[in-house]
Amino acid sequence: MTTERDFIRSLGQQFPVLAPVRTGIGDDGAVISTEDHSDLVVVTDMLLDGVHFDLHTHSPAAAGRKAVAVNLSDLAAMGCRPTAAFVSIAVPRGMNDAATFLQELYEGIGQILSEYSTTLAGGDTNSWNGPFAINVCLTGSPFQQRSVLRSTARAQQGLYVTGPLGGSFPSGRHLTFRPRLAESEWLMAHFPPQAMMDLSDGLSIDAHRLAESSGVGIEIYEEAVPVHNDVPVQISRAERFRAAISDGEDFELLVVLSDEQSMQLRSGAIEPPFPLIEIGRTTEANGLWLIDSSGLRRPLRATGWEHPI
Amino acid sequence: MTTERDFIRSLGQQFPVLAPVRTGIGDDGAVISTEDHSDLVVVTDMLLDGVHFDLHTHSPAAAGRKAVAVNLSDLAAMGCRPTAAFVSIAVPRGMNDAATFLQELYEGIGQILSEYSTTLAGGDTNSWNGPFAINVCLTGSPFQQRSVLRSTARAQQGLYVTGPLGGSFPSGRHLTFRPRLAESEWLMAHFPPQAMMDLSDGLSIDAHRLAESSGVGIEIYEEAVPVHNDVPVQISRAERFRAAISDGEDFELLVVLSDEQSMQLRSGAIEPPFPLIEIGRTTEANGLWLIDSSGLRRPLRATGWEHPI
Repeated sequence: MTTERDFIRSLGQQFPVLAPVRTGIGDDGAVISTEDHSDLVVVTDMLLDGVHFDLHTHSPAAAGRKAVAVNLSDLAAMGCRPTAAFVSIAVPRGMNDAATFLQELYEGIGQILSEYSTTLAGGDTNSWNGPFAINVCLTGSPFQQRSVLRSTARAQQGLYVTGPLGGSFPSGRHLTFRPRLAESEWLMAHFPPQAMMDLSDGLSIDAHRLAESSGVGIEIYEEAVPVHNDVPVQISRAERFRAAISDGEDFELLVVLSDEQSMQLRSGAIEPPFPLIEIGRTTEANGLWLIDSSGLRRPLRATGWEHPI
Repeated sequence: MTTERDFIRSLGQQFPVLAPVRTGIGDDGAVISTEDHSDLVVVTDMLLDGVHFDLHTHSPAAAGRKAVAVNLSDLAAMGCRPTAAFVSIAVPRGMNDAATFLQELYEGIGQILSEYSTTLAGGDTNSWNGPFAINVCLTGSPFQQRSVLRSTARAQQGLYVTGPLGGSFPSGRHLTFRPRLAESEWLMAHFPPQAMMDLSDGLSIDAHRLAESSGVGIEIYEEAVPVHNDVPVQISRAERFRAAISDGEDFELLVVLSDEQSMQLRSGAIEPPFPLIEIGRTTEANGLWLIDSSGLRRPLRATGWEHPI
């Protein structure tokens, strides 16, 4: 079985970056240089009934909202605001009351787009003998001059998250989460990250990806990882930690700051109007490591959601 | 039953254009203004197994090629060259030899992208309990200063197509057609069209769309419409004409030129290195009309491929 990660790596080899593309396969979004050398960022995600939501229990509006929200989260990770949305859908043929379904779907889409002052600018509509599928593509432009990548961290920098992790799927938070665009905008203005990505598949696997694409290692402080209230309290501490780093669909930002930025943050001169929790550090030595409360360092296996294909 | 056309119209009302989007729902692509006021164009199309191709008989490479080609055709219609491609796929879970399928799919995608010096810059890969679905999104930039819309024709202008029509689906031409990018580039340089679109759903329905969005009518000269060799010769002349205007999936360009441009063309001073066949004329009076060999004018019903949803 091929994993998504291996597959994406092979695609990156098959399709090298070619101007005007500046950053291609492997980041949260692609960066294209425009004629005035400003960044245009494009993100896309396909969501499928029975995988990313379940129309037996979730409303069309919730599915539409999520399809846009996960893409907004990718733009936040790139340090960008959305500029336009494109939605393609495949609707099951002979669906009962397709008109109502479509109306509710696009209400969910319209609602979240309007929260971010963005409009639907195009798309495609089809019906077929298959389940409901939706693809969203967003264009974005940087909050500041430049977008941020996951591949630009250096060793000995601080690792932060913007909120508690775990339990998103069972609690339904994966449908209602707020993409961290405001957080991204604030960071870009005050502490432009050295590297950034969004947590979609679980901290352990996503941190591994950031480390790998930056060519560094990462140490995570076990005690520092904030566990979300959505993770059941009756399970063991080890299980709660495992949920926080593996459940996925958190859609918080994973942020790398330089030591200088970390010091400024600690000084309290400028305080972020949102949680910005230090959970680890990049290292020279490759790999993903866990530092427990006794200071013991052991390898951390990436156990998040690796899409099999 | 809602038709795609009604649905797109209602979406256009729900999602009005909002800066930096300049042209949104309803054209072949969307136009977004960049900071230096150059046009960025985005097109997207979703193709589905059993609808746009059939993996029982068509190869993964042919499906991947078509998914890119129909989007390239949309860019040609906007007077744009491609700058980057984004491909999202949903692969049936438990597919036999998924790795080979993916390899062939991306070979088909890579082949046609490289013909147009474009690279894959991102996308999304999923598996699910549904048939194969693929969404392609392309960014593009105008061959000249500006992109071309379908909504800017005026009355009393000439209507042209870039090649013969009909029989595309049964012949398999819909999988192998060459997107008219070279034709678009030449037109933009020598005779920048007053309006343009690509013929995807059949001349009668597509001409109707161009007329409607430009607020004009269109007359089509029955004798002038070029019928493709793919249309069987043993059927009646009327049936052959019907095939040419209704079959769809031609992916030729429908071009509107001013009288001045038409006169220049006829003078032969600059000759297009491809067929550019005059098939009709825009009119003040709304509607779609057919002029037969005896000069008789009668209403032409739009009978192309209207996607039911």
